[in-house]
Amino acid sequence: MDAAGIGALMESLGRAALAAAQALALAPGTQKDAALAAAAAAIRADTAAILSANERDLSAARSRGMSAPRLERLRLDERRVEAIAAGIDAIAVMPDPIGRVTAEWQRPNGLRIQRVTVPLGVIGIIYESRPNVTADAGALCLKSGNAAILRSGADSEHSSRALHECLVRGLAAAALPASCIQLVPTTDRAAVGYMLAGMSDYLDVIVPRGGRSLVERVQKEARVPVIGHLEGNCHVYIDRDADVRMARSIALNAKMRRTGICGAAETLLVDAGCAATHLAPIVRDLLEAGCEVRGDPQVQRVDPRVRPASEDDWYTEYLDAIIAARIVEGVDAAIAHIARYGSAHTESIVTENPATAERFLQRVDSAIVLHNASTQFADGGEFGMGAEIGISTDRFHARGPVGVEQLTSYKYVVRGMGQVRS
Amino acid sequence: MDAAGIGALMESLGRAALAAAQALALAPGTQKDAALAAAAAAIRADTAAILSANERDLSAARSRGMSAPRLERLRLDERRVEAIAAGIDAIAVMPDPIGRVTAEWQRPNGLRIQRVTVPLGVIGIIYESRPNVTADAGALCLKSGNAAILRSGADSEHSSRALHECLVRGLAAAALPASCIQLVPTTDRAAVGYMLAGMSDYLDVIVPRGGRSLVERVQKEARVPVIGHLEGNCHVYIDRDADVRMARSIALNAKMRRTGICGAAETLLVDAGCAATHLAPIVRDLLEAGCEVRGDPQVQRVDPRVRPASEDDWYTEYLDAIIAARIVEGVDAAIAHIARYGSAHTESIVTENPATAERFLQRVDSAIVLHNASTQFADGGEFGMGAEIGISTDRFHARGPVGVEQLTSYKYVVRGMGQVRS
Repeated sequence: MDAAGIGALMESLGRAALAAAQALALAPGTQKDAALAAAAAAIRADTAAILSANERDLSAARSRGMSAPRLERLRLDERRVEAIAAGIDAIAVMPDPIGRVTAEWQRPNGLRIQRVTVPLGVIGIIYESRPNVTADAGALCLKSGNAAILRSGADSEHSSRALHECLVRGLAAAALPASCIQLVPTTDRAAVGYMLAGMSDYLDVIVPRGGRSLVERVQKEARVPVIGHLEGNCHVYIDRDADVRMARSIALNAKMRRTGICGAAETLLVDAGCAATHLAPIVRDLLEAGCEVRGDPQVQRVDPRVRPASEDDWYTEYLDAIIAARIVEGVDAAIAHIARYGSAHTESIVTENPATAERFLQRVDSAIVLHNASTQFADGGEFGMGAEIGISTDRFHARGPVGVEQLTSYKYVVRGMGQVRS
Repeated sequence: MDAAGIGALMESLGRAALAAAQALALAPGTQKDAALAAAAAAIRADTAAILSANERDLSAARSRGMSAPRLERLRLDERRVEAIAAGIDAIAVMPDPIGRVTAEWQRPNGLRIQRVTVPLGVIGIIYESRPNVTADAGALCLKSGNAAILRSGADSEHSSRALHECLVRGLAAAALPASCIQLVPTTDRAAVGYMLAGMSDYLDVIVPRGGRSLVERVQKEARVPVIGHLEGNCHVYIDRDADVRMARSIALNAKMRRTGICGAAETLLVDAGCAATHLAPIVRDLLEAGCEVRGDPQVQRVDPRVRPASEDDWYTEYLDAIIAARIVEGVDAAIAHIARYGSAHTESIVTENPATAERFLQRVDSAIVLHNASTQFADGGEFGMGAEIGISTDRFHARGPVGVEQLTSYKYVVRGMGQVRS
């Protein structure tokens, strides 16, 4: 397709989305929930077709020589398809985020003011190889009354189409327009450029889901607001007053439960005040679990397998079984290290000292700060938000897990009795 | 100053603001309020010096041939200086918007999650000739724990400096860093370009305050999020069930109380069902108050002074004593007119019929929708928000009046007892 063809196609998707968004903004919660339930049922009924579409994507990816971890992200099986359907069901049973009165007051002149939630409008989602994003993002946008324009990566093209068809059947079952959730019908890269720079009349926000290069491109080129999520260079700080068993358990889980997610710990900070007792067992747990440890000189002395850490290591999001480790002089040094090297995503302190914990929770300026819990809880599902469209590392509009509540705007409704301004 | 000089200057402002923001984020409410009270006192004590600085700006503007309405916006007098000081006092007595727990829940695994407000960080404000913006924006940023970089227009250079000096004295009196509120010390236009495109490491958000060309330039060039406020093409709809006296009073006030503010009505829509009784008195009130009326054929028949309206009139924000007027067939036609021509700022319905009112309030997608009240209430002060930094016409982050609450972000604080993720 040539550039003019892509432009015309994207314009028509934009116009259809705008019309759908106007209908969807007024749809009652029960209608949206019926569409979600029907979409989940369609996904379950279509499992075989979805898996066969996924097999087409996988074999094309294999023949292109895709790496094993990326193949694993792309791969669906019956359990994963069921998890996708169950995720939509979970979104369906949540309360309607639209039409909620989030503030209400009366003025001395008698005006009654309410702040009421409304949808953002039309949301563009640009993603790479995880096919489940089609279903998660489509369902979250629908629940929050937003029309969605989904742009799947070429890798998951057939899987995304099969899942999208089920979403559209759900919409039809609830008598909602099919264009509430549209999938860009081409994986031509020019379509992404057009979404970023040419659709500001239609798109209210763009959400990139993918690697650093995608998110950076979107943040650089987008002419509409972006909910971005960049890296999670997450820290676990073991304070001098930490319980050693809890410290071992949290450090190991934060790093090794899953190493490829943004909430995985990347740097371990151990207070000099407990290094003699706490450092060695934590480092050995990690080494024995197959984690490479890169440490400062004191950490290197614990075990010959510890490699030296360089300055770059403190900045690095490994997303792998590697951790950087260093000794710090107390909680304030830990806070300073995080402020300097961190990405303001998620950090945890392990301590039995409540005053030290509160100091850390207040002074560390990250989207999520935890006390005595693993950083791997940085997840919309774990927060009880049903699902998430990502973890925002921005401070503007949405920060941390982005669920349906973060996909809303608001308006002010003012009721008077003839008041005029003097 | 050459481009390199401007760049170095703006970098140094950015670094100082970042350091100040870190201190300010932890400052208790009492300290911020003490700084605000001291700044208000300094403004009152310095009234003569402020007025003499303003006289310098006025005489330079007069010699450049500035128009009377712009001179009036630039002009300060004792009453206006007192109003500026009183505005800062009003901000000081408001509750601290930082550290508020806006949501709190517990997960089945025992994790306790709080969402807690934090400052946005560093806010850049770019404004034109109203000198009071220096004080209002500086005070709102301080109250909300944000460092501010203020870039005043050349017209109000000396007035802005005099007011800024008072803010800095207030900061010093409360032992807060002077760089919490910085005024760009040059009116070189290159400084604006640098703020928009070169300071994304320092600025978390930019707020333009001024005419359409400034706001559009900022929205086009800014590499950081913008809280923009574009035009207010506001509507008053007189429904068939409107009380005629209330309709006359609201239409006249909405248009003529002040014509130059964004909440002034620009188009009058009258239901065909009450045109016979309501249209003529409303139109004559407006004409007699000195307002030009541009109407459709039916409105033109009311009075020979009514001029014909063109298609362009329905799109126009006059900010002047001019109103467009048309007959519509009921509330749905009014809603459709507003959706087509409006700017989603502020609209009002006048009716005694509660069902019609609710239909309008729900279906009109504007930042502010009013029932039986004047559109001129579109104002942060009138909403009880103390003051405002503007009225956002965006849907993202902040919509409608932007007060201290809208200048915040949040973080999640999670307290556990050793939980790890399974």
